[in-house]
Amino acid sequence: MTAAGAALVLGVGPQQGLGAALARRFAAEGLHVVIAGRSPEKLQQVANAIFANGGVATPLVADATVEGDVQRLLDEAVLVGGTLEIAAYNVDSNQSAPLLDTDVDMFAGLWRQNSLGAFLFGREAVKHMLPQGRGTLIFTGATASLRARPPFTAFAAAKAAVRALAQGMAREFSPQGIHVVHAIIDGVIDGDRARSQFPQFVAGKGLDGLMRPEAIAETYWQLHCQHPSAWTHEIDLRPFKEPF
Amino acid sequence: MTAAGAALVLGVGPQQGLGAALARRFAAEGLHVVIAGRSPEKLQQVANAIFANGGVATPLVADATVEGDVQRLLDEAVLVGGTLEIAAYNVDSNQSAPLLDTDVDMFAGLWRQNSLGAFLFGREAVKHMLPQGRGTLIFTGATASLRARPPFTAFAAAKAAVRALAQGMAREFSPQGIHVVHAIIDGVIDGDRARSQFPQFVAGKGLDGLMRPEAIAETYWQLHCQHPSAWTHEIDLRPFKEPF
Amino acid sequence: MTAAGAALVLGVGPQQGLGAALARRFAAEGLHVVIAGRSPEKLQQVANAIFANGGVATPLVADATVEGDVQRLLDEAVLVGGTLEIAAYNVDSNQSAPLLDTDVDMFAGLWRQNSLGAFLFGREAVKHMLPQGRGTLIFTGATASLRARPPFTAFAAAKAAVRALAQGMAREFSPQGIHVVHAIIDGVIDGDRARSQFPQFVAGKGLDGLMRPEAIAETYWQLHCQHPSAWTHEIDLRPFKEPF
Amino acid sequence: MTAAGAALVLGVGPQQGLGAALARRFAAEGLHVVIAGRSPEKLQQVANAIFANGGVATPLVADATVEGDVQRLLDEAVLVGGTLEIAAYNVDSNQSAPLLDTDVDMFAGLWRQNSLGAFLFGREAVKHMLPQGRGTLIFTGATASLRARPPFTAFAAAKAAVRALAQGMAREFSPQGIHVVHAIIDGVIDGDRARSQFPQFVAGKGLDGLMRPEAIAETYWQLHCQHPSAWTHEIDLRPFKEPF
Repeated sequence: MTAAGAALVLGVGPQQGLGAALARRFAAEGLHVVIAGRSPEKLQQVANAIFANGGVATPLVADATVEGDVQRLLDEAVLVGGTLEIAAYNVDSNQSAPLLDTDVDMFAGLWRQNSLGAFLFGREAVKHMLPQGRGTLIFTGATASLRARPPFTAFAAAKAAVRALAQGMAREFSPQGIHVVHAIIDGVIDGDRARSQFPQFVAGKGLDGLMRPEAIAETYWQLHCQHPSAWTHEIDLRPFKEPF
Repeated sequence: MTAAGAALVLGVGPQQGLGAALARRFAAEGLHVVIAGRSPEKLQQVANAIFANGGVATPLVADATVEGDVQRLLDEAVLVGGTLEIAAYNVDSNQSAPLLDTDVDMFAGLWRQNSLGAFLFGREAVKHMLPQGRGTLIFTGATASLRARPPFTAFAAAKAAVRALAQGMAREFSPQGIHVVHAIIDGVIDGDRARSQFPQFVAGKGLDGLMRPEAIAETYWQLHCQHPSAWTHEIDLRPFKEPF
Repeated sequence: MTAAGAALVLGVGPQQGLGAALARRFAAEGLHVVIAGRSPEKLQQVANAIFANGGVATPLVADATVEGDVQRLLDEAVLVGGTLEIAAYNVDSNQSAPLLDTDVDMFAGLWRQNSLGAFLFGREAVKHMLPQGRGTLIFTGATASLRARPPFTAFAAAKAAVRALAQGMAREFSPQGIHVVHAIIDGVIDGDRARSQFPQFVAGKGLDGLMRPEAIAETYWQLHCQHPSAWTHEIDLRPFKEPF
Repeated sequence: MTAAGAALVLGVGPQQGLGAALARRFAAEGLHVVIAGRSPEKLQQVANAIFANGGVATPLVADATVEGDVQRLLDEAVLVGGTLEIAAYNVDSNQSAPLLDTDVDMFAGLWRQNSLGAFLFGREAVKHMLPQGRGTLIFTGATASLRARPPFTAFAAAKAAVRALAQGMAREFSPQGIHVVHAIIDGVIDGDRARSQFPQFVAGKGLDGLMRPEAIAETYWQLHCQHPSAWTHEIDLRPFKEPF
């Protein structure tokens, strides 16, 4: 199979997560998917599922906050795919605490995972996309990207920075053909984590009250397919039952 | 051909406009398209083009600001299609003037065309969609929906009201299965009007500097196809070269 | 007493309301206050209280939605005061209903009271202020100016239009010396209306959980006093206990 | 002289800057002003000017990004003033670069100065204010707090984080009597720095086209004086001629 270019997803965890769904969706289009995250086991499982469906995937363990790791990821994506068609920053490192219980480690850690990682990823992706004259760069945002509420203030600060980064990058690179998207995921994604951590919350939400990763992945793909004369920079996504 | 339900587009003008592109896109999916606007000639041309491609269309002359007209439109759509799958309020009545040259007729006229029409259309559409338990209602917004700049202050006031209407309706009806979208068209749509009125502006924009109606219509369709667990309420669309 | 110019407040009702508090605050600075509203009795009471404190007030019955009334108001203000220093549009016409129970009369009525009146008032005020090269124009906004929530969708549409109007006017007239402010009152104002209509709500709010009109009036006055090198266009005001 | 409590300003530089103007304004009200910054010479000059006017000031060299420094500052303020009435985070560390020329040092440095410093300052200030049941905490924002534009993307990311921090803190601590304000300074502050770095820009702005620090300081003071029943959380400030 000759891949039609590469897609890179940074922030791939369990099979049921959004990162894995993005990887499957992009692989289904014939893209060589480079999937990166912290757990080699989880990455291998996601890759195996893609192989089983006839797709091509390269799992890579990487730390989003380490410049060298991010650069290596991007180099690898271009190496295996020839071109880099899509790069999705899907790291979602959340932690909550009353502000007086928030220490420097937590505040800085959330910034490193969410904001610094997004910056490194975005900058390196653009470096490879500019010579191509095209490419889609998507940042996964959250409810907190727009509104800061305790006990998520430190998380909100980190996500607001990502939103600003995406906006500045869109203004700088869209005219050169790079499609930069900020997708605000305003709801809880269905999966083992939600179901084990908040079983009552999940039960209360009812059918389709949690977000299906496949549904989000479909929208990411459609955003990638948009014609340059009508590009979206910011989009919100939430379950139909979600108050906002 | 058995139609798979109806799509209603209010605000259909020339073939090259967004309204016509929306109608063609929805017709291509097998929906019976009810197209409404003020010019019977233009509506007939758009309908003919749909027929020529094997689609089904019903042209209806209607005034968006007349309650009876809007009600009749919706009734007709349900009558011909069985169900109302999509309803798009695409009236874009723009006019500009310094504020001191803005009279009550202009201020009220912009409100009637943009805001009152949107309210009537939205309310009547929801009345038919609620018993179905589904349906997509899309309002076409503009740059001015978010920012008021002279000499477009009166227009911006009218479009800001539409945005608020769409937001309130999304909060009220999403949990009942109605997908309410506010699409911000942040650029100039390509077509005869732009090319004849601002030829230099158009030339200066270059390739894909104006928005292709088909590209916007594609995104509207994809929004309709979104799974209820991950619905978009607000989306922006602009040419890749457009400063924002 | 030689008045130092006029202040005009449109939307003056009971003594305890914001309109009356604004009038008292401006009168206390030696401005000749023109107070306008619908009830001659209430206007007279507010005027009497101002007289009793040594201030100067002219009560005028006027309908904010009638162009001639608004023009007459502005003419009168300049006539009695010599100059028009402050003009505050304080009409707050609220009404709520589920969207399907909202009829054209209600939707249009809210727009007329809130949006059309603000447009007429703003335009006429600016006409008189421009030759002076100065003047402060303040629009009273509400929670709904920023967010549309059922059952306040129609009200929110009207208030969003006012916000856009204020923004466009600020962009157009600030460089000519007119200070245009949009003040978002994000809470319930203390007074008979609140206490009689929602006694339990008021009790639940506790001390200073409702907004004191005098506190809001003080901020309006300070906004008027701002130096042109550091003008505020938009400000929010809410009780310290108010969730937002 | 018995001080009526302390005011703390972190980010005090030259006499003409905003930090110095804030210190003078607060000292003029009889508050013991603790002024902190990096240059002992500049701090001493600002302090001397306050002494010359009969005020009380304590200059302290501190690094906003060092937790121990910030804690020491707050302790000192409470020690000298008895209570901490106002705490203003006025650090404005700006730097610009195309995104591809932005390195980790710059991205992280801007975050440390603007965001991490604001977090440390805010948290420590609140710790001292909560037992008092009152206090005003003001963060100085910038145009970039709301909009990210190249080449200020990294700066905007840092300032957006501060805005989110201020919002989350307002939601958490307002009900406990702490007034948290985010002031958006949307213009260039007059002073030696602007006049020497951008002389043509300054000349082009004309009279009052740059912001007078005293004018901003006056608004900060008025925000401190607001009654709790009508507190402002966010306010913009810009020269009357400034496009926005």
